[in-house]
Amino acid sequence: MINLDEALKKHNLTMPNPPVKAGIYSPLKNFGGCYSFLSGCIPSFNGDIKWKGKLGAEISLEQGQVAAKHCVLNLLANIQSACGSLEKIKCIAKMLVFVACTDNFYDHPKVANGASELLVDIFGEETGLCARSAVGVSSLPANVPVEIELLIELKA
Amino acid sequence: MINLDEALKKHNLTMPNPPVKAGIYSPLKNFGGCYSFLSGCIPSFNGDIKWKGKLGAEISLEQGQVAAKHCVLNLLANIQSACGSLEKIKCIAKMLVFVACTDNFYDHPKVANGASELLVDIFGEETGLCARSAVGVSSLPANVPVEIELLIELKA
Amino acid sequence: MINLDEALKKHNLTMPNPPVKAGIYSPLKNFGGCYSFLSGCIPSFNGDIKWKGKLGAEISLEQGQVAAKHCVLNLLANIQSACGSLEKIKCIAKMLVFVACTDNFYDHPKVANGASELLVDIFGEETGLCARSAVGVSSLPANVPVEIELLIELKA
Repeated sequence: MINLDEALKKHNLTMPNPPVKAGIYSPLKNFGGCYSFLSGCIPSFNGDIKWKGKLGAEISLEQGQVAAKHCVLNLLANIQSACGSLEKIKCIAKMLVFVACTDNFYDHPKVANGASELLVDIFGEETGLCARSAVGVSSLPANVPVEIELLIELKA
Repeated sequence: MINLDEALKKHNLTMPNPPVKAGIYSPLKNFGGCYSFLSGCIPSFNGDIKWKGKLGAEISLEQGQVAAKHCVLNLLANIQSACGSLEKIKCIAKMLVFVACTDNFYDHPKVANGASELLVDIFGEETGLCARSAVGVSSLPANVPVEIELLIELKA
Repeated sequence: MINLDEALKKHNLTMPNPPVKAGIYSPLKNFGGCYSFLSGCIPSFNGDIKWKGKLGAEISLEQGQVAAKHCVLNLLANIQSACGSLEKIKCIAKMLVFVACTDNFYDHPKVANGASELLVDIFGEETGLCARSAVGVSSLPANVPVEIELLIELKA
């Protein structure tokens, strides 16, 4: 059971269109019959980048968490576009969260929690709670504060 | 054949309890019937973080290598806790080593070797020697010097 | 159909020998019967490292793109060496591109495009166009500007 509408309402979010590609890659690559790697998504919304800067500097923890949720929305929009429906997701296996930050920012897990909360609210714990790493990077494409990639398993 | 006790003795290490979660994630997520992604672990020991700082600054190469071994112990403690035994591991496929460091530190592979040596000593070359990347990041959660994530294959 | 020779000619490149290992890892680890994770490769050429420094500082975008292509050549050399032939590749699933850069460099996708272009020229879109993330890191082994790791699926 996917609770997309409820979760979007709870988090005060709107589903975006799939993001326009910013390079030579596939937004989602199926392999092995039932796996799919999702290319890293940034927190754009319909082409608009609302957050620019780094955690520990221009971007607050709260902004970083909302930005992380927008990364997730773009990932989900790419899944909907490529697979037809989010119902095709069997489980979310792994999330890698890159946080652009100053070298004395240490709350990467709290930023990543923004993304994880949204996924659990949409898919429930069994499907949506995944393995995760969250690390600080010196910079990200287009000066965004967060980039997230996903590995998912699809239903047969 | 797993040589956990011998390897711990050789490296002068003690097995910790599984680390307390620091966010909304699963320490280990099974997918595809026989794979498991392990969330990034930091070098805590039973809740205590012994190393804070960066390679190239407060943390020496030797300290970084020992810290990397403690990341491995936490990963293994999470596997034991979720799977019952390390005997369930068929192979360690991939290790990603994030080293928090100054921008003129270039010995990431030597830091990562601390983790790889321990895995090979415990599991042997065939099971324990894995693909690996080691990169420098601007900061890590809780100001630790190393964070490591693993992809493993489980026995059927 | 693999167009290695044509692609090398087009990009003015020569195939290197497999890089010498710089640590305790496997250049390529097979798992699950048909998957292989490739350890991160740096832009060395037969032991020689031509590019040292960071994007946004000593390394230009064009140099970064050529360096990214050399990472790919080393990855392919490792596949050839371990699997016998590039014909064994069923698809390239995922590429993770680490760009060592200043904290105000934001063109990571353009650097990564160097690698992606080469892969698509060699393997074609269906096989060679993969999911991708490209992020900025504070430093990389041996002070190289780019490191790339790959997840591939092998033919049965």
